[in-house]
Order: sequence, then structure tokens, then C-alpha cells
Amino acid sequence: MHSPSFAIDSGAAVNFARDLLDAIAAGTRDLPGVTRVAYGEGEVLAFRLVSEAASRFGAETRFDAAGNMFVTLPGRVRGKHILIGSHMDSVPHGGNFDGAAGVVLGVALQSAMAAAGLVPPFDLTVVALRAEESCWFPHSYIGSKTALGVLSPAVLDDVRRSDSGLTLAEHMQALGFAPDAVRRGETLLNISDIVAYIEPHIEQISGLLNAGLAVGVVTGIRGSFRYRNIQCRGDYAHSGATPRPERRDAALAGARLVCAMDDYWQGVLRDGGDLTVTFGQVSTNPDRHSFSAVAGEMELCLDVRSQDLAALEGAEQALKAAIAAIERETGATFDLGARSGSAPAVMSAPLMRLLHEGCADGGIATQDMASGAGHDAAMFAGAGVPTAMLFMRNENGSHNPDETMDIEDLGRALHVVGFAVMHMDRLQI
Amino acid sequence: MHSPSFAIDSGAAVNFARDLLDAIAAGTRDLPGVTRVAYGEGEVLAFRLVSEAASRFGAETRFDAAGNMFVTLPGRVRGKHILIGSHMDSVPHGGNFDGAAGVVLGVALQSAMAAAGLVPPFDLTVVALRAEESCWFPHSYIGSKTALGVLSPAVLDDVRRSDSGLTLAEHMQALGFAPDAVRRGETLLNISDIVAYIEPHIEQISGLLNAGLAVGVVTGIRGSFRYRNIQCRGDYAHSGATPRPERRDAALAGARLVCAMDDYWQGVLRDGGDLTVTFGQVSTNPDRHSFSAVAGEMELCLDVRSQDLAALEGAEQALKAAIAAIERETGATFDLGARSGSAPAVMSAPLMRLLHEGCADGGIATQDMASGAGHDAAMFAGAGVPTAMLFMRNENGSHNPDETMDIEDLGRALHVVGFAVMHMDRLQI
Repeated sequence: MHSPSFAIDSGAAVNFARDLLDAIAAGTRDLPGVTRVAYGEGEVLAFRLVSEAASRFGAETRFDAAGNMFVTLPGRVRGKHILIGSHMDSVPHGGNFDGAAGVVLGVALQSAMAAAGLVPPFDLTVVALRAEESCWFPHSYIGSKTALGVLSPAVLDDVRRSDSGLTLAEHMQALGFAPDAVRRGETLLNISDIVAYIEPHIEQISGLLNAGLAVGVVTGIRGSFRYRNIQCRGDYAHSGATPRPERRDAALAGARLVCAMDDYWQGVLRDGGDLTVTFGQVSTNPDRHSFSAVAGEMELCLDVRSQDLAALEGAEQALKAAIAAIERETGATFDLGARSGSAPAVMSAPLMRLLHEGCADGGIATQDMASGAGHDAAMFAGAGVPTAMLFMRNENGSHNPDETMDIEDLGRALHVVGFAVMHMDRLQI
Repeated sequence: MHSPSFAIDSGAAVNFARDLLDAIAAGTRDLPGVTRVAYGEGEVLAFRLVSEAASRFGAETRFDAAGNMFVTLPGRVRGKHILIGSHMDSVPHGGNFDGAAGVVLGVALQSAMAAAGLVPPFDLTVVALRAEESCWFPHSYIGSKTALGVLSPAVLDDVRRSDSGLTLAEHMQALGFAPDAVRRGETLLNISDIVAYIEPHIEQISGLLNAGLAVGVVTGIRGSFRYRNIQCRGDYAHSGATPRPERRDAALAGARLVCAMDDYWQGVLRDGGDLTVTFGQVSTNPDRHSFSAVAGEMELCLDVRSQDLAALEGAEQALKAAIAAIERETGATFDLGARSGSAPAVMSAPLMRLLHEGCADGGIATQDMASGAGHDAAMFAGAGVPTAMLFMRNENGSHNPDETMDIEDLGRALHVVGFAVMHMDRLQI
């Protein structure tokens, strides 16, 4: 019989994780689902429950100026940190696992290691991050950026929470944290002292479920470019009386753009490239459109992602070429508006190897996979920290009340991460 | 020098029309533009001003049960009617000429004929119709349907005015008319006694303006089919994480439909067919869509028109074929929802010839043209009445405050219609 080298009481670890997740769900229930507003009531409660659970096995808990929480199990070498992290906020009426499962896995691992008397090679620090879901503040990765001391100070006053209308700084202040220290870039982390950052996270689609696998090793996180407010302008005109050559139909031009970018995407996929193209919001102007008028305006929102920077650049060139062609063809005009985006993040190959070894040690089948969604891990990777992610099998997608993770899969992921932690001194970094 | 056979004091007729149109504009001003709500204050005032103008040359004025007004100049043969008609309501903040110009032309013609002692071969009756603009009551041609006694009784109680929320019957009652008589189909018109219906109307696009012509003879009025509430359903899914084969993207499916129908339209035009295809309202669900999610829902509104019934049928087949193909391709599904429509109306060839003769008599260049927009004339044609329309040159489109008609063009149209009226006994009908 296979005998894993990473030996903890896995039943107790799973029970610890289940109880903590259940308590978090019960405390942040908002039917259907849970709601943990960034810097809001549910997030605060979730942080408190994690902190209380950590205190039961005597771990130190600290908060940084922005309110990110660090729970440390001391290692053989002190002052060097292996980080296990994720975020605690959720979307409105979301599921209980997106974010929280990674943090809970971390403290359950700490608890099991403490119980088994296993001392990690470096301090093992679980990082519970704030404000990852951009539905609350329209800015990405606030928690990991503040944890790393790289948040642009202007963001503190520029972004307002969607429900309250108050700024990020005001919300930090309201919870007793120190936005002025955040503004100065103060942080508890010294990047050169971070050995690794590992983010366990539920998969946000059904890839692992369909493949019959409990966990997947992430190869990279897709970067993106986004135009959230593309304006297409034509002329309103009588639907029955205006001949086609005299039209400047914004709805047609917008539809042509959606189709052109889908055609381009299909070509990239045929060539084996990595890309997603999504027009998630498409609308004529509800204040002016009419069933009997050619549409004079359309708004579109484009989100393009890839693991490959060149693929993002290619898609952006294709977008501009398509717009030029459609403008010539339809007479309508486009204004792309503000662009935002993020660079693709590559995961650390040595860390990925350790995760694979952990899978083998636990007899757990796995596969490599890209993360289409963004994660705080992208910020750590971007800061030069060796970074890895481990996806856990999940049913029904994420950002909805029907997220479903089998707690036994969390136990399997815990084994894999625990193995990697215990062998982190072998890491050539 | 050319000497027209239809000899009236055209300067006086133009002044009569200008003064009446100016008075109607002044009384229904609602900047920018004018507002004459169907069965509302502005429409009532416009009817009163026309009636007062008619009383100055001694014409008889009568109202039917629905409030349509009939101003009659007696002819040589009594009890047979040549009708000149159009509607008096406007869209909100609309122009002064859409509808009203046709009625004003009619009474100005009566005034000029009375002054010149010209007696028409049959009674010449100007019909001022109610409620043509479907922005007020969501039902087409209420005025002409009630004038002809063919309004479906249920409509009286089923349709509510967009501003008041009251039913058509309630609004008729409020003005002292008789919805119960309308319900019974009572009318002042006996179809077999109508010699002809002629509707002078501003053109709603710039065809005549661009061609340098004052008037155009309408060959037919486009019929239509409409799906005002097409629902496309897919699945909401993560924009960065969901691979293309796993998507059911409603925004993509909707865009594909818009493009497919535009492609079909281009083919019909290349083959010389008559068709317009308009998706005037296209929208993902604003309550659920997100920049970072594949759209799970899209609503579209389709308006297809043609002079040719076979072209409408062909387009409807093409629509269904396109939907089937797009459903297969995208996995999204369509529900077309309720269908409405109207049959194309063919104008009377003998009446068109009389209008051409009238143009020749007045030395007025003209051309034949289809009406893309619907008009009350379609109801008269559909009831078997020999029907014609004469378009007048107009700048800046219709249904907006910038409609511009040169009053001299109304004078030219008046000559053409007057000539046709005086020669109506030659009509083989």
C-alpha cells in the first residue's frame, strides 16, 4: 500500500476546514448564497472566524495597515515566509468557496502540522487578503497590492464602493486600519524574505470535474486588455423609410464587431493559441432606441484574455483593424474609450514541480491548466515572488450560490500543498 | 408660357396653409418641437383650428364616434366622397408637418376651390384622423380603422396611452366621443361611396430633397413583420475561464443574427428586391450582465418591411433558418415571441396616373417612390378604397423637431391634388 511521506491526521484537517467553512457560511448567509462585502460586515466576520480558529492552535495573527491578515506557524528558519493565501470577500449572493477555501486550507494545514509536530523549513504564513472581487471597488487586486505595498496611492481616494459610495480610504479608516500608512506603501512583507506564494483556489469552471480530477496545477494566469465602454455612433433613422446605403446603423456595426472578434478568436484557437474574447455587455441606448428606428448608438464592453502577451497584442491589432473595416462598411464610428488591462502571470516551474511531487506523494492524479480568471497570485508573481496556484475541483462555476466543492477535495489539495511546504528548502530559487 | 388647367389663386392657398400651420405650431409648441398627444390637448387644439379655418369658407364639419373630423365641400354629385386625409397627432417634441400638412393641404384646397367657384365632381371631404403615431397607443392606425369602422373592439379597452395609462375608450369618452358606438363599428363612411382616398404627406427621408423634386407619387406602402421581443438565452459564465466550446454566449448569438439578416438583406437588394431589415433595440440584460461574464441573455427587436408580400415571407424564412443555424453553432436558443405585422398596400394605378397628370399640368417634375413608413392610406387601400399618396419634399427626416417643409412645395402638391380631384370623374373605378 502506498504510504505518503507527508503524514498528518488528514481526517482532523478536513474536519477543521469543514467546521470553519460552515461557520463562515452561516455567519455570512445572504440567501441565495453568501455576501461578504469587501471591507464590509461579512468580510470582517470571516476574518474574525479564521483568526479565532488559528488561536486554537496558538498561531500568531497580525494585520497590516490595509487590514490584510497574516497567521504564522513558526518554521525552522524564522523571518523567511512561505505564504499560502487568498481573499475572503465574495460577490453578492456568491458561493462560500471562491477565495475563502484557500485561506481555510492554509489554517487547516497549519493546525494539522502543529498537531503532528511538523515544523516547516521556513515560517508558514497564511495570508487572508481583502477586496479581491472587483464588484465592490472597481480596481483589481486591492488586497495583494496593499499586502505588497504597491497600491497606487490615488486609488485610495479614487475608487468608491459600489454599495456605499464611500472611498477605499474611508472604508479602511472605518474598520480602524491606516490608509495613510497604506498611502506610504507600508507593509508587513519584505519581498526578498518571501520564499513562495501558493494560492489554493476552487476552479471557476468545470474542467477538473469533467476530467475526473480533484486538483490541477496552474501554469499561468491570463492577462487581459479591456475596453469597458466602447461607444458606437451612427444615426437614428426611420426603420421602414431609410434605404440601406443611407444608414449609419450603430447596432449593425456593433454586431459586426462582435462577430469579427469571434471569427478572429476561432482562428487563434485553430492555430493552437491561448485566448478568450468576451463582449459581456452590448446595448443600444435604452433612452432613445425604438423598434421602428435604426439605432444611432450602441455601447459594448470587451474583455480579452490570454496567458500569452503576444496573443493579447495580436487581438488588440485585430480589434483595431476590424473597427476600421466596419467603420468603412457601415459609416458608423467607434470610440474605444478607456483601456485597462493586466499582464499575464507565469507560475514558478520549481513550485509547480513540488506540487506535482505532492500529488504523486498523495496518490492524487492531476493535470496542468491555465487560469482564465485573475487571482491575487498574479500580483505576487508580478512582484517577482515564486508563485503557484493549485485549483480544486468545483461544480457549477463560481460567483454564484451554487458553487460546490467536495471537502475531501480540499483535503487532497491540503496534502499537496503541505508536501510542497515541507520540501520548500529543496526549492532552487 | 405654360398655362395650367387647374386655375386657383395659388398664392392665397399657400397663405391659407401657412397661416393655419403656423397657428397649429404656435398652439402646440413644446420645445424643442411640438407635441400633439393622440386624444390629448394638442390634438384637440389642432382639430379646433382646422375646423375654425374651414368655417371661414362655409364648409360643413362633422365628427364620427371616434372623434375623426370630416370637412366637406359639396360636389356636383352629392353623397359620393373624394377623401383627402391624414392625421393630426405628433410624436413628443416632433415636427409640425408629419400628418398635419396633409390635412391643412386639404382644407387650403377646399378654400381655394370655394373662392374660385370650382365645384368638384363629387363631395370633396377632408378627413382629419386621430391617433396615428403609435408612441401614444401601442396599436397602428387607430384613426383610419375607426373612420372605416374596422377597429377590433377589444383594442378600445386593451391599449393604454403611454403617458396617462388610461385606455383608448377612456380617452374617447373623456373628449365626449362615443366608444360604445365605435365598438359597434359605427362610422360616417360607407366604403362603396368613397371614390378615392388621397393622403398628402411629407416624405420621412430626404429622397425628394436629394433628387431635387418637390413631390413624389407613392407606388405602395411597405408592409411589415415585427418581432418586438426576441429573447436569446445562453449561460452566464466567467469571461476569462470559460473556453469557447463550453460557452453558450447570448450576445454572440444575437450579434450573429443581426449580421445574418443584414447579409440576407444585401442579397435581396442585389437581386433588385424591396426590403428593409432593422434591429433597432439590441441589449444584454442590464440587471445581470457584467464586463467579466459571458452574457446569458440578450433581447432584440426586429422590424422587416417590404412592398412585396413574397419578400416579407422570404425574409421570415431566412430569419428562421438563420436562428436554427446560430442555435446549432452557439448553443444559445432563441424565442421569437409575439409577431405583429401589416400587409403591403398597393396604390391605385388610375389615381397615380391622375397625380402624374396633375404634375404635368402644373409643370412640376416628379418621380414614383415606395413609402417605407406606414400611413393611414394603407388602411384605406386595405379596405378596397382606391388610394394614393403624394409625398412632399422634407428636410431632416420626420418625428423630430427639425422637420422642414417649404410651404411652396405644399402649394405645388396642392395643385397636383386639386387637378386630380377635378378629374376624378374620369377615373375608371
